[in-house]
Amino acid sequence: MTMVRCDMTMSLDGYICGPEAGQSGYLNEGFFRITSWLTELASLAAEPGGMAGGVDVTDVDDALVAEMFAQAGAYVMGRRMFDSGEGPWGPEPPFPAPVFVVTHRERAQLERDGGTTFFFVTEGVRAAVDRAKAAAGDFHVHVSGGAQIVQQMLAAGLIDELHLHISPVLLGGGTRLFSGDLPHVIELERFRVADSGNVTHLSFRLPTIPRCPLAAAAASD
Amino acid sequence: MTMVRCDMTMSLDGYICGPEAGQSGYLNEGFFRITSWLTELASLAAEPGGMAGGVDVTDVDDALVAEMFAQAGAYVMGRRMFDSGEGPWGPEPPFPAPVFVVTHRERAQLERDGGTTFFFVTEGVRAAVDRAKAAAGDFHVHVSGGAQIVQQMLAAGLIDELHLHISPVLLGGGTRLFSGDLPHVIELERFRVADSGNVTHLSFRLPTIPRCPLAAAAASD
Repeated sequence: MTMVRCDMTMSLDGYICGPEAGQSGYLNEGFFRITSWLTELASLAAEPGGMAGGVDVTDVDDALVAEMFAQAGAYVMGRRMFDSGEGPWGPEPPFPAPVFVVTHRERAQLERDGGTTFFFVTEGVRAAVDRAKAAAGDFHVHVSGGAQIVQQMLAAGLIDELHLHISPVLLGGGTRLFSGDLPHVIELERFRVADSGNVTHLSFRLPTIPRCPLAAAAASD
Repeated sequence: MTMVRCDMTMSLDGYICGPEAGQSGYLNEGFFRITSWLTELASLAAEPGGMAGGVDVTDVDDALVAEMFAQAGAYVMGRRMFDSGEGPWGPEPPFPAPVFVVTHRERAQLERDGGTTFFFVTEGVRAAVDRAKAAAGDFHVHVSGGAQIVQQMLAAGLIDELHLHISPVLLGGGTRLFSGDLPHVIELERFRVADSGNVTHLSFRLPTIPRCPLAAAAASD
């Protein structure tokens, strides 16, 4: 059974990027501060599109990134994240697999080096997940953001595992991962905690029945 | 040197209580859901004002709560939290020490059983911290919320240790611990990670120079 896994790095105060405006969108100074644990890793540098030269590698972080790449058979991402990354990722984006971009704008598929093909899905997030699952084969579907797509997927019960990588910094403002409009409380099962000093990795399973009203959750305690 | 320690329980999506309105203020259903790790502990039940009968005790959680009570020589809290708790806490509030409530409203001090005295401080949060430090003697000052007072204290550099107790639930709405108006990025030093299954405890030291602009933080990497 193909699983849908979402990995997001956020600051301790819940931001996935800083408040700075600009053409870079998500990929601003705050973003690079909190994702430095990831962008500086050797395992990422060894992948197509790897962004750095392997400084500050830690075993914990490195093992986690290796796990992510080993599992990923396809990716789902939001349009805003794609727009932010299309330029900076260059000819070999760090997603060596089919990538399904949820968007309202039709666009022909986009081939890149290293195994990346971007497909633009205009039928909504559920359709993008279905196509990604079909493409992933024996591997898993990975969701890398941005915030809106993660929120939509949580609300729709489309995520099986949520991996939050918490950077020990208070950005004080920016784009929140959790925008505060989930229709229901979601109880999670925390199944892994790992900490490298650079970042704390918390891994959760989401329930098969992903939504429960707060009253029901309290009653079952 | 008297230290100022802030302990806050929040949901994974950053809320200290749920979205429900009502006279109970902070102490609503979402609040009780995420603080169940705390309210059900034996060590708390053994304290004056202990709220439950020692079910679901875990060693990790219990040791942490015991540490909190052993350290606390005085408390600082916000007016809204006091208003929410004054009734429910009853004649023996779970703060067996002087408590300094930051408020705009003058009020005579309020004696309770079990060693609690509430003092109402109208000169601002820094004055409340100074009075709490003087009262704490060889012990520490503990800050228990609510969100506004924590935000003010972080912005003013008044907190030495931040202990976040993260409950594995997405409340989806409510009162945020981090409201997003810090004037500067704050880099933290994570010095402890503990997990009981019920909750993940992350402990951070704040820098002596608590505020640094993002550019300076990035430049020093």
